[in-house]
Amino acid sequence: MSLIYRVNMTDLSVRAESPPAEYAERGGRALTSALLAAEVPPTCHPLAAENKLVIAPGILTGTGAPCSGRLSVGAKSPLTGGIKESNSGGMGALALSALGIQAVVLEGKPRDDTWYRLVVNADGLRIEPADGLAGLGNYDAVARLREEFGEKIVCLGIGPAGEMACAAASVAVTDIEGRPTRHAGRGGMGAVMGSKRVKAMVVDPTGARRPQPADPDRFKAGAKQFQASLNGHPLTSQTLPTYGTNILANVINEAGAYPTRNFRVGQFEGAEAISGERQHDVILKRGGKIEHACHRGCTIRCSRIYHDQNGQFVTKGPEYETIWAHGADCGIDDLDAIAQMDRMDDDLGLDTIEIGATLAVAMEAGVIPFGDAQAALGLLREVQRRTPLGRLVASGAAVLGKAYGVVRIPTVKGQAMPAYDPRAIKGIGVTYATSTMGADHTAGYAVTANVLGVGGRVDPLCPEGQVDLSRNLQIATAAVDAMGLCLFVAFAVLDDEHALPAICQMVSGVHGREFTGDDFLALGKATLAHERRFNAAAGFTAADDRLPGFFHQEPLPPHDAVFDVPDAELDQVFNFVR
Amino acid sequence: MSLIYRVNMTDLSVRAESPPAEYAERGGRALTSALLAAEVPPTCHPLAAENKLVIAPGILTGTGAPCSGRLSVGAKSPLTGGIKESNSGGMGALALSALGIQAVVLEGKPRDDTWYRLVVNADGLRIEPADGLAGLGNYDAVARLREEFGEKIVCLGIGPAGEMACAAASVAVTDIEGRPTRHAGRGGMGAVMGSKRVKAMVVDPTGARRPQPADPDRFKAGAKQFQASLNGHPLTSQTLPTYGTNILANVINEAGAYPTRNFRVGQFEGAEAISGERQHDVILKRGGKIEHACHRGCTIRCSRIYHDQNGQFVTKGPEYETIWAHGADCGIDDLDAIAQMDRMDDDLGLDTIEIGATLAVAMEAGVIPFGDAQAALGLLREVQRRTPLGRLVASGAAVLGKAYGVVRIPTVKGQAMPAYDPRAIKGIGVTYATSTMGADHTAGYAVTANVLGVGGRVDPLCPEGQVDLSRNLQIATAAVDAMGLCLFVAFAVLDDEHALPAICQMVSGVHGREFTGDDFLALGKATLAHERRFNAAAGFTAADDRLPGFFHQEPLPPHDAVFDVPDAELDQVFNFVR
Repeated sequence: MSLIYRVNMTDLSVRAESPPAEYAERGGRALTSALLAAEVPPTCHPLAAENKLVIAPGILTGTGAPCSGRLSVGAKSPLTGGIKESNSGGMGALALSALGIQAVVLEGKPRDDTWYRLVVNADGLRIEPADGLAGLGNYDAVARLREEFGEKIVCLGIGPAGEMACAAASVAVTDIEGRPTRHAGRGGMGAVMGSKRVKAMVVDPTGARRPQPADPDRFKAGAKQFQASLNGHPLTSQTLPTYGTNILANVINEAGAYPTRNFRVGQFEGAEAISGERQHDVILKRGGKIEHACHRGCTIRCSRIYHDQNGQFVTKGPEYETIWAHGADCGIDDLDAIAQMDRMDDDLGLDTIEIGATLAVAMEAGVIPFGDAQAALGLLREVQRRTPLGRLVASGAAVLGKAYGVVRIPTVKGQAMPAYDPRAIKGIGVTYATSTMGADHTAGYAVTANVLGVGGRVDPLCPEGQVDLSRNLQIATAAVDAMGLCLFVAFAVLDDEHALPAICQMVSGVHGREFTGDDFLALGKATLAHERRFNAAAGFTAADDRLPGFFHQEPLPPHDAVFDVPDAELDQVFNFVR
Repeated sequence: MSLIYRVNMTDLSVRAESPPAEYAERGGRALTSALLAAEVPPTCHPLAAENKLVIAPGILTGTGAPCSGRLSVGAKSPLTGGIKESNSGGMGALALSALGIQAVVLEGKPRDDTWYRLVVNADGLRIEPADGLAGLGNYDAVARLREEFGEKIVCLGIGPAGEMACAAASVAVTDIEGRPTRHAGRGGMGAVMGSKRVKAMVVDPTGARRPQPADPDRFKAGAKQFQASLNGHPLTSQTLPTYGTNILANVINEAGAYPTRNFRVGQFEGAEAISGERQHDVILKRGGKIEHACHRGCTIRCSRIYHDQNGQFVTKGPEYETIWAHGADCGIDDLDAIAQMDRMDDDLGLDTIEIGATLAVAMEAGVIPFGDAQAALGLLREVQRRTPLGRLVASGAAVLGKAYGVVRIPTVKGQAMPAYDPRAIKGIGVTYATSTMGADHTAGYAVTANVLGVGGRVDPLCPEGQVDLSRNLQIATAAVDAMGLCLFVAFAVLDDEHALPAICQMVSGVHGREFTGDDFLALGKATLAHERRFNAAAGFTAADDRLPGFFHQEPLPPHDAVFDVPDAELDQVFNFVR
């Protein structure tokens, strides 16, 4: 049986409810967005009691479906002012689904300044005071909780950034090793959790009985085919396991789309030093780990474990986006310094993409010089020390840029762009501009057809065809996010005609009722429609579906391209939403 | 002959043009808003080259019409992201109009970091380097310029806040004594001027021949009647000259609408200590001045000169809004400390309303304690020292509040509310919510009928009738702002049926063509329509025409009122704009 836990932080009460019809059989982003659209006033302050933080595993999470352990964390975003689903790896989704939990919804907020923790196990969910955890970084907080509750627990929590309610604060999720290395990073979900005074959620799946598919045979047949599809694609079976996400550094740099020094040029002279190939060698030499899974049941294993020169653990990955954000975007080519920053981001509870972009904007403003890794680490220590400058950093690129009078701020809807310059990969530019989430590569990863030759080919430098590409990907992605599937399954889905039917087969097996490819797309569309309508009611218009002016004006070397997808076409991305 | 100077800061060229038909016979806000709506891309970054700063005297400025020396400064606002007209007293408008200048338009921006000054006199307008002025406060900068150019000049300039391009930065305008005490304060016009690297504009009216009315007799007849109307109204002939704007402190406190400690309650226990009556006595005792005019030709003379305990000049006024913002809103009841803050705001080039509100939000966030005047002065010194905290303060309440995770931020469209709580004076709440300018009392001063019994009576605590009241006032105000008339003439216009015809008579005399009361209203409506359309294209929707949630939720003592004008009614304020 599936349960939704309503955690009322105003009166500190907990209610377990069976999902009402409109939420039944939904999961992940499809559930977070439906619930937010139905229950949160779109114009409320994101840190006010009316906002809700929704934590939901996917529809397939916990079924044993390959790569289905993603967790959706949603709320009205303090970063964008719009609806937000932030997606995390780690063990959070599996632990919750093992307990039969469809979602945990944090509502209201306490009137006093006590910190709380939520303890979730086979007996239910309880709220406990947790002032002893306050002020701790994620690593220390998790260590403390594992000491108390044992090593089987999974933790979700906020670091100092979330306690400060800063808009780039993440919700950290522990990985297989019990480290807080996986994050619902984007959009300030940690600030919302902090505003509700919840420092951590401890999930203990001990004694849980995992929900079984209604039609186990059907499910198993789908899962088998799906695994075969993943095994058959070179990206998910070879490239990602071996080199991790950062294999993209050389690829995107080669494409002239690797944003360097706050999006000034599209190629970084230091790319090789921070590439996936180099990272692979460094990791192996130091006794770290490649082919590491961020959650159980992941067969792609694109995560890694990164050691320092003494062979001591520093951090996971770091991932491509993280390395780019703290690397090329800041003009920094020092992999160890980048790993240190990644570790600090994880510990402070910060979105690595937003923070790297913010450091680059601070460099643009002259606060610290481009390329100065020690100075960049110094800015993260300002967050640790909770200084005004630290608060600016932890509030993200748009806020820091505003305080420093910066014009070149690479954000859409207040959220920083990831590691692909939209002038040289125009499909991703369309996604950045129009996504309900603000600038977000995962919302419609057009790098596939634009650069990787996955799912066809669309010339990355031509404005034509990008809107259709982005639209289709945004719809499919919203459905993938509902499943709890890792986005990387999309490579197989795009190139192997058996992959999507296999997903549908698995869902049919879970629900014991036919779920078709059309249902899959309908779910994606319905989710996006919830999000678009929420954002419209929150005050978003076509003017918010635009890139900053400098992407239209400054040609990006080496292609000297500008972003030139016409506004009228951008306005057609959501032509299916009324 | 009327000239518009186009000052291109990109190539440092100047072009004098005769106004094209669409700008001819416009002035003040009617000109700034028409020009911005026609020439500035609504979605541009406010600090980018595409934005323009328009400085325009009113239609009646320089004609000798009583109280007609107001200056309009307009641009896309870095504070609100919408169109902005910020209105200033002082001698700027008179000096420009004496030179036959209808407007100065700053366009583009330099590619390097040189600071410039503009020198305007009977020979024309020239651009000169001014790096020697950089870093100076407004007082020192003006002293330097008067030393070089003589004491007849009028200066417009920015202080350190404008140099930092912070969103609460003002454009300072010198008064009759040549002090930088009058400001186009609201909306960050100083940041726009700073982004164009213009530190100061020196206007030397020596040798100017003031433009004459086309029909002098008609003009004179109108002016005579208008002066009689001003003389006949007790507010403009007695109360304001004697007690200044701060006569409102006791009145609004009595009405339970004097926002105290960041809008927590509507009455301040220290109101008496910072009241206009007390201020009057202190000023006279110390040899300051009451009945002081902020510009020549003002017959209301609500300005004052404030001395310290040793009889030395500190600042003008301070005005009601300034005293409230740094006083009641911060829980501070020390008139001398408030005067010091006013002096610092003037010197740094900061909007006193925004800054007082920001200090109060910093108090709400726990940065400094409520009521601590020395700590508040300390935050202004952070601006002087250009620290990160100083940048947060100078960026206004919304940005500082965001960095500190504050929910109770009393802003609309990013601009801080002035000194009237919208829960206890609901007409002004409608103006705050809907004005194209963000929260702005001057945009539609419903305190008239709500509290002062001017222009009829509308119960301040009832939601009924407030929308019609605000709409009518917003239309009339836009026209008053076009004239270059001080808003305080509105008291006479509202209560004396001869006042508006007298204004129209004066305009008819200036243009030599009939200008009717209908034309007056049409001008106001047309100006608001330009502004609404600009804002819509910039991305504003009905969701932006709302007060923050806490005004709907937290009852305000002593009336325990919430803001309850229905959204659907708010959406009818601009029912005349298609």
